[in-house]
Amino acid sequence: MRREELTEKILDIKRERGWSWKHITGEIGGVSEVLIIGALLGQMKLIKPLAKKAAALFGLSEAEERMLNEVPYRGMPMPPTDPLIYRFYEMVMVNGPAWKALIEDEFGDGIMSAIDFDITFEREPNPKGDRVKIGMSGKFLPYRYYGSEQGIPEYGYKEPE
Amino acid sequence: MRREELTEKILDIKRERGWSWKHITGEIGGVSEVLIIGALLGQMKLIKPLAKKAAALFGLSEAEERMLNEVPYRGMPMPPTDPLIYRFYEMVMVNGPAWKALIEDEFGDGIMSAIDFDITFEREPNPKGDRVKIGMSGKFLPYRYYGSEQGIPEYGYKEPE
Amino acid sequence: MRREELTEKILDIKRERGWSWKHITGEIGGVSEVLIIGALLGQMKLIKPLAKKAAALFGLSEAEERMLNEVPYRGMPMPPTDPLIYRFYEMVMVNGPAWKALIEDEFGDGIMSAIDFDITFEREPNPKGDRVKIGMSGKFLPYRYYGSEQGIPEYGYKEPE
Amino acid sequence: MRREELTEKILDIKRERGWSWKHITGEIGGVSEVLIIGALLGQMKLIKPLAKKAAALFGLSEAEERMLNEVPYRGMPMPPTDPLIYRFYEMVMVNGPAWKALIEDEFGDGIMSAIDFDITFEREPNPKGDRVKIGMSGKFLPYRYYGSEQGIPEYGYKEPE
Amino acid sequence: MRREELTEKILDIKRERGWSWKHITGEIGGVSEVLIIGALLGQMKLIKPLAKKAAALFGLSEAEERMLNEVPYRGMPMPPTDPLIYRFYEMVMVNGPAWKALIEDEFGDGIMSAIDFDITFEREPNPKGDRVKIGMSGKFLPYRYYGSEQGIPEYGYKEPE
Amino acid sequence: MRREELTEKILDIKRERGWSWKHITGEIGGVSEVLIIGALLGQMKLIKPLAKKAAALFGLSEAEERMLNEVPYRGMPMPPTDPLIYRFYEMVMVNGPAWKALIEDEFGDGIMSAIDFDITFEREPNPKGDRVKIGMSGKFLPYRYYGSEQGIPEYGYKEPE
Amino acid sequence: MRREELTEKILDIKRERGWSWKHITGEIGGVSEVLIIGALLGQMKLIKPLAKKAAALFGLSEAEERMLNEVPYRGMPMPPTDPLIYRFYEMVMVNGPAWKALIEDEFGDGIMSAIDFDITFEREPNPKGDRVKIGMSGKFLPYRYYGSEQGIPEYGYKEPE
Amino acid sequence: MRREELTEKILDIKRERGWSWKHITGEIGGVSEVLIIGALLGQMKLIKPLAKKAAALFGLSEAEERMLNEVPYRGMPMPPTDPLIYRFYEMVMVNGPAWKALIEDEFGDGIMSAIDFDITFEREPNPKGDRVKIGMSGKFLPYRYYGSEQGIPEYGYKEPE
Amino acid sequence: MRREELTEKILDIKRERGWSWKHITGEIGGVSEVLIIGALLGQMKLIKPLAKKAAALFGLSEAEERMLNEVPYRGMPMPPTDPLIYRFYEMVMVNGPAWKALIEDEFGDGIMSAIDFDITFEREPNPKGDRVKIGMSGKFLPYRYYGSEQGIPEYGYKEPE
Amino acid sequence: MRREELTEKILDIKRERGWSWKHITGEIGGVSEVLIIGALLGQMKLIKPLAKKAAALFGLSEAEERMLNEVPYRGMPMPPTDPLIYRFYEMVMVNGPAWKALIEDEFGDGIMSAIDFDITFEREPNPKGDRVKIGMSGKFLPYRYYGSEQGIPEYGYKEPE
Repeated sequence: MRREELTEKILDIKRERGWSWKHITGEIGGVSEVLIIGALLGQMKLIKPLAKKAAALFGLSEAEERMLNEVPYRGMPMPPTDPLIYRFYEMVMVNGPAWKALIEDEFGDGIMSAIDFDITFEREPNPKGDRVKIGMSGKFLPYRYYGSEQGIPEYGYKEPE
Repeated sequence: MRREELTEKILDIKRERGWSWKHITGEIGGVSEVLIIGALLGQMKLIKPLAKKAAALFGLSEAEERMLNEVPYRGMPMPPTDPLIYRFYEMVMVNGPAWKALIEDEFGDGIMSAIDFDITFEREPNPKGDRVKIGMSGKFLPYRYYGSEQGIPEYGYKEPE
Repeated sequence: MRREELTEKILDIKRERGWSWKHITGEIGGVSEVLIIGALLGQMKLIKPLAKKAAALFGLSEAEERMLNEVPYRGMPMPPTDPLIYRFYEMVMVNGPAWKALIEDEFGDGIMSAIDFDITFEREPNPKGDRVKIGMSGKFLPYRYYGSEQGIPEYGYKEPE
Repeated sequence: MRREELTEKILDIKRERGWSWKHITGEIGGVSEVLIIGALLGQMKLIKPLAKKAAALFGLSEAEERMLNEVPYRGMPMPPTDPLIYRFYEMVMVNGPAWKALIEDEFGDGIMSAIDFDITFEREPNPKGDRVKIGMSGKFLPYRYYGSEQGIPEYGYKEPE
Repeated sequence: MRREELTEKILDIKRERGWSWKHITGEIGGVSEVLIIGALLGQMKLIKPLAKKAAALFGLSEAEERMLNEVPYRGMPMPPTDPLIYRFYEMVMVNGPAWKALIEDEFGDGIMSAIDFDITFEREPNPKGDRVKIGMSGKFLPYRYYGSEQGIPEYGYKEPE
Repeated sequence: MRREELTEKILDIKRERGWSWKHITGEIGGVSEVLIIGALLGQMKLIKPLAKKAAALFGLSEAEERMLNEVPYRGMPMPPTDPLIYRFYEMVMVNGPAWKALIEDEFGDGIMSAIDFDITFEREPNPKGDRVKIGMSGKFLPYRYYGSEQGIPEYGYKEPE
Repeated sequence: MRREELTEKILDIKRERGWSWKHITGEIGGVSEVLIIGALLGQMKLIKPLAKKAAALFGLSEAEERMLNEVPYRGMPMPPTDPLIYRFYEMVMVNGPAWKALIEDEFGDGIMSAIDFDITFEREPNPKGDRVKIGMSGKFLPYRYYGSEQGIPEYGYKEPE
Repeated sequence: MRREELTEKILDIKRERGWSWKHITGEIGGVSEVLIIGALLGQMKLIKPLAKKAAALFGLSEAEERMLNEVPYRGMPMPPTDPLIYRFYEMVMVNGPAWKALIEDEFGDGIMSAIDFDITFEREPNPKGDRVKIGMSGKFLPYRYYGSEQGIPEYGYKEPE
Repeated sequence: MRREELTEKILDIKRERGWSWKHITGEIGGVSEVLIIGALLGQMKLIKPLAKKAAALFGLSEAEERMLNEVPYRGMPMPPTDPLIYRFYEMVMVNGPAWKALIEDEFGDGIMSAIDFDITFEREPNPKGDRVKIGMSGKFLPYRYYGSEQGIPEYGYKEPE
Repeated sequence: MRREELTEKILDIKRERGWSWKHITGEIGGVSEVLIIGALLGQMKLIKPLAKKAAALFGLSEAEERMLNEVPYRGMPMPPTDPLIYRFYEMVMVNGPAWKALIEDEFGDGIMSAIDFDITFEREPNPKGDRVKIGMSGKFLPYRYYGSEQGIPEYGYKEPE
């Protein structure tokens, strides 16, 4: 069994029962709905108690429940051809250099983690057309200055001007 | 003169004067600092009054000021090789399908605009290591059901379950 | 069941019954025939009443009907190798920069939406060989100048010369 | 001298004089403004009388005038990274198969020419936001059934159902 | 049923019966053998009377016969890895610019059609080793100068020196 | 000096003098005009007596004359973006498998040489629009059955059915 | 049946019987073992008497025997990811320009054939570690100077210094 | 001034003075020599006191010293064509899945940081040929289970079997 | 049977039995666990006695045991989309040039072998978060100066400054 | 100074003096001519005494002589577009799997080194057309079975059947 086959099975069941994602994440709970959907789509791992609940909800076998608990081989073909996902890709492509400048200006040399990060989605009512409101927060990880001698900080930091 | 040459000139001046991006965006003002930095890096247009202020700050010629006011050919080679920008790309690649599921669950068929959107960056102090806090908001654009006959809504919307 | 499998089934039925696309879109109706064909080929969503009519026409199961009502993962491999589709790709490749110049000259900084747009196809009789006449109309979406201070318009617009 | 250098020179002059594309195409005239801008951007040929007028307007040398009259090596790197041009690319990618179905349904086996085609752009006022209205018309070119024996038409055509 | 499956079935039958392509095209006839083989390999459409003959020859079902009459999604992955096909690709790659120069010198701005063209293959006996003799003929399609004003020809043509 | 620089210089001179390719190949002569233009565009070698004539015609230095006599690093970026050259690429992509079938049917296992081949271009007048007539002839090169034991031919050949 | 399926079947039988390639090529014989293995892996054609012997050895059906006698669509995805094959690719990539210089210095303008060439592999005992000894020989094919006038050789050759 | 130009200048000086990298990193000191070389090659930032020492060593201007202190746009074209670097790439390509399995087995869901990591190189004498000994150490970063409810750990961890 | 199918079967059994990789490599033993996992994932060969033990553990057929003993076609699609594997890829991409400089400085012209190398993984406890500690050692292979005349060393070596 | 600039300078001098590669390698000597040409084309390092001779021959500066002694960043864009080099690439692509099978059959699991290998080119007179005779020899490098326990060989070897 490959992970795609489990995803396909889960989507078949979701379709037959007429469930929305909201309904499913409400049933499983425990962590952010982005993580739960990500796991059901084959991009994230569900920890054991949640994999158990997902298995109960979808009527999965024990092996399938264990597969939901495995770390998948993540990622998908890029560039994304789907317009909704492409818009996020475009934001990174067009604005990436400016984001880099701003973050390094504030934090020094390093990155914002794509592992220790969270994200929330909300509807923001607006008379000109509702908006998607996104909140993200990712740990800043400074580059390590390994082999540092005395007087040199071990981690990248924002140097005084 | 190509836009890259203007960007290179601006970065040379920034370096010689020892300015931070914060300093520069503070001097020019008017709109989000992401937009100003984006324009100085060749990805955005600065409207006339701001291009004038940028030209004064950097001592640019009139033609260079006008170039800042032009809409550039946007984008950069992908996938990004720089680790900071790659992390955002990875977020889209790994989480894109889950974001798509969530947004379509809430809003129906459409996209979140990459044109009519805004973004803010903040430092979020955290004892385990400070975090980068990002706030985004983009207009939801429903797919148009053109050629709609009576009783069919003209725009994508969230259908009743 | 994957969306491609549903598309393949629909094409098999269409072939067996000897139906043209005109016949099919005439039976389903409700919105533009481009949208209906797009949905049957797996690129668009059919809203519920139309998915019901399509399911009745093709004798689909309830799960298949629901799949037609889902938003698919859109897009196909590019560049297109099929000559008919490649010609449209070539138009964009050769003329894109000129279109960009013209639209920005008239509307300012922004894009023409690929979401809120419609398209019609017609035969244009011509003694030298009939022509394909296409009418398109897409909403202009100005770039947002977020973080705008007083006196700066919030949206991209055509600045006075 | 390469064509890009001539394009860069023309854009420098346009910027220094503060001309819009409308102004330039108004001065040169003779054919569609899409063709004139395309030629000045290095994608099209200007026929001799128009190349002469363009040379006069921009103060070009005789060799530069002749270069405008040459057929360039057309095309640009794809996929387009600029959002405005990408939207057209996305339309082809998402809708190409449906357009192919519709055109072949109506005309039989062949293509719509990307050579013998014209295009017009107009502003379509709309209270919900103005729209870009595009009119295209391209000659339909049927596939040739070469080596046709008696009773077989030499060109692709719409066969009777 | 996908077109590749039909192609595979046809090749299986061809192999089992020990038929050469010559034999098959001789049985079906009507148009050039390149077109018939192209259709059986899934790249061309066979018009109805020929699809009927092909179906009789291979013992195909009515749905398979109809599929042969459909316009396929043309093209194959490039660059070609097969040496025989690669040699043609190399000819275009190495000689393309010279061919372009020669054709434009003779005909003006335009293309040689890949739709309205024919091709023949012959053995050319030669004491140093036989040669493949190819004859091609394609319609020249001049670029259209749409929006032409008086005195400007509507189509690309060879201007007087 | 790189070969592209020599090509650019030659094109500059051609443009300044207002020469057609016909005129140039008429002056140099000796071999097919496709080869001469190919050499001037940097894809072919001109043998010494012809390089001398080309150098005299364009007023080149001795080093430039020698460069024309060198074998260049051949080829250009693919796929071709220029419509005229793309049409040839498309012919190979769409028809390659059929050509392969036909040539192997007639000649057995091998290729048509892209090295020992010639090509001619002619205008073919036609009331429906003139055509480009192309004649090609390439040596057939059978695969070598090396290590052949007695009774096995050393070279690929057309086996008896 | 696709050629990959036949290859998979042959490898399954080889594995079940515990045969080495040496054993198999010894049984089939007739031509170089590289050619026999190439054919069994789906890259080469086996001529009829050898296909018959291979079919007998592996217990293949008549259709499978005929498929071994067919010219396959050659080639595999590149760059090769397998380290053993990559090393050969690297040799070409790093040394290609030097090989080109040496061969053209000795033979003039042309190529070494990849069709009419042979190759042998041997173990070369060496106290520092045995070596793979490879012997290759390929026909030199001079470029054709087609359209040659009197006094110009028809084929590329090494011109006198 | 672009970063590549500074790298080129530094390599020119290194060559003229006949310095080894060992000598240079010995003069600058402060952090690992990998980081110093990385910065001089344009892939890392040198903190201010080290940039000052590097500038003194190479006789750089103040602007060049500041550029060494900037975070560069990191990365290079991939796959690497240089054999030495390719071998590391191959290790990742061939062994990546096994490393992933081992690390996740030991640590749970997460990654080994490429930012907070260090690396050392040493010569390991060996009678069969010396070896390159590499020591690496990277922080393990567990995936964040954001939105965690009570009883669910906030970070990825190794779950009990 | 293809190697991926064997891998899929092994992973299915591992999942059903609830085994960790540690458990499996403990049962098979003999060589590094990286090699064993690599073989089970289809990237390495298991020598006969270990293939026998793996077959006993997983209950494989004799043919499957032999397949484990075969050298697979190694490698996977790159760039890796999985974040854990990507981080290693990024290390090579960002640091490759510096590693090359350091190794060549110490050893002269050559590479570190990706064939004769070993690797170990360990957990390194750390109060700021545990680290992955990696130890690698690869044989240095100097470039061969073949055709060396007297006084020239046959192998690349570190020349005296 | 970049390595390409040195290569261009060397080729300019070679052209002006009318030297063949044979002449140049005869003057420098010391190692195989493939290595010398490779170094002059920027793909190999020349050891000090040979770099000195090359510098004397071409009249290079001391810095240029040192650059010839540096290990370059090797490799070139792939796939090769030049027909001569492409033929070698095609040999690897079409025959790679068979070579892999043969080498592993004879030597066991490992590779043939692309570092410790040599190559010679010779003209092989042949009445049907002269041939290029190539002799190669590369060290076989067995995969290392690191972490080997007693009774398991440390290096890949050919296991008894």
